[in-house]
Amino acid sequence: MEEREISQAVIRRLPRYYRYLGELLEHGVERISSNDLSKRMKVTASQIRQDLNNFGGFGQQGYGYNVKYLYTEIGKILGLNENHNIIIIGAGNLGQALANYSAFESRGFILKGIFDVNPRLTGVTIRGIEIRMMEDLKDFVRENDIEIGVLTIPKTKAVEVANLLVDNGVKAIWNFAHTDLNLPDNIIVENVHLSESLMRLSYNITRYNEEHKND
Amino acid sequence: MEEREISQAVIRRLPRYYRYLGELLEHGVERISSNDLSKRMKVTASQIRQDLNNFGGFGQQGYGYNVKYLYTEIGKILGLNENHNIIIIGAGNLGQALANYSAFESRGFILKGIFDVNPRLTGVTIRGIEIRMMEDLKDFVRENDIEIGVLTIPKTKAVEVANLLVDNGVKAIWNFAHTDLNLPDNIIVENVHLSESLMRLSYNITRYNEEHKND
Repeated sequence: MEEREISQAVIRRLPRYYRYLGELLEHGVERISSNDLSKRMKVTASQIRQDLNNFGGFGQQGYGYNVKYLYTEIGKILGLNENHNIIIIGAGNLGQALANYSAFESRGFILKGIFDVNPRLTGVTIRGIEIRMMEDLKDFVRENDIEIGVLTIPKTKAVEVANLLVDNGVKAIWNFAHTDLNLPDNIIVENVHLSESLMRLSYNITRYNEEHKND
Repeated sequence: MEEREISQAVIRRLPRYYRYLGELLEHGVERISSNDLSKRMKVTASQIRQDLNNFGGFGQQGYGYNVKYLYTEIGKILGLNENHNIIIIGAGNLGQALANYSAFESRGFILKGIFDVNPRLTGVTIRGIEIRMMEDLKDFVRENDIEIGVLTIPKTKAVEVANLLVDNGVKAIWNFAHTDLNLPDNIIVENVHLSESLMRLSYNITRYNEEHKND
C-alpha cells in the first residue's frame, strides 16, 4: 500500500466506517451510496465523500461504493490484514471478557497468552489458551514475539507491569487500568478509562436534570 | 450550585483532573501547585490554570490548590455527589466486571439490578445483587426509578433492549454493545466501542511499523 498522509480526525472516524460497512456486509448489501451511508451513520454525505476521497475514493458517481472493497481497503489502512501477537495481563472478569472476544482473531489480533497472579487460575484455559503466572511473563514475551499487551489489572501494578512488557519488546499497550502509564514516546498506548466514561455520563445527566428541573 | 457555561473541551478534561486529584488524596497530598499538577498530567500549567479558572479557580497565587476542595468541587460539577440508580443488562464477563467495579457506589452510581437471558443465572448474586431474567426488566425499571442502563449484551439485542429501557423511563445508556442505538435526542448515550479502540491501536502500530521498517 502506498503511504498516505491522513489526518487524525479521519483516522478516528475510520473504525466507525469499518464497523458500519461490516454490518452492511453481514446483511448482504453489496453497494451503498454516500447518501444512504450518511443516513445510517449520522454523518453528512459530503463528509463521507471527503473522508473516503482521502485515500482514493473507492466510489463512482451515481453508482455508490462497493461495500466489500471499501471494507477491505479500510481494514488494510487500519492494519487489520496484518497479524499482531497479543497477551492479556489480568484474568479477572474484564480480562476474560476480552479473551472471549471472538473478533480478535478475525482482525489479526492473535491471543497468545493470559497472565494472572492468582495461583488458583494456573492451568485454567480460556478459548484453549492457558492462564500463566506472572513469573513466566518476561520469558514468554521475549520468546513469542509479543507486540501488544492488554492490561486488565489494578492500577497499583499497572505501571510496573507495563515497564516490564516494554523492556522486553512489547510495542503497544491497550490499557484498562485506571492510571496513566508514562511510557517512552515510541510506545503506543491506547487507554480505555471506563471511570472517565462513566463520569462524562454522570455530567451529562446532571446537566440534563438541571436544565429540566422546572419542566 | 450556580449554573456555569463550561466548554465541552474542559468537560472532557474534568474526569482526568478528578482522577489525578483522587490519586493525590490517596497519597495524602493536601496542596499542589499548577506546575506540579502539570508535570503529572502532561498538560501545561497555563492550561490547568485556565481550565480551573472556568469554574472559580480554587487556587491562590503561590499557594497552590487545596486538593480535597478541588476534588470535591469537580466531583460536584460532574454530578458525583448525586445518586443515580443503575442496572446492568447482560451478566456475561463484561457485565460482571462492571458489577464488581467498587468505585460505582462511591461515585453515586447505585447498582440496583443485573439482568440476563440465561436461566441458569437466575438467583445468582454479584456483590449481593441478584441476577434477574429479562421478562422482569420492564416492571423493575418502572418500580425502581432506574436512571441509567448499562448494555453489555450482543449488538443484535442492543437496540431492542435500549428502546425498552427508554420507553420505561431510563434517561441514559452506557453502551458497550458494538452498535449505535439511534435513540431520541433527549436520551444521553455514552458509547464504549472497544473494537474501535482496538482498531485505533492497530492503525498506530501499523503506521509505526511502516515508519521504522528500514531502521
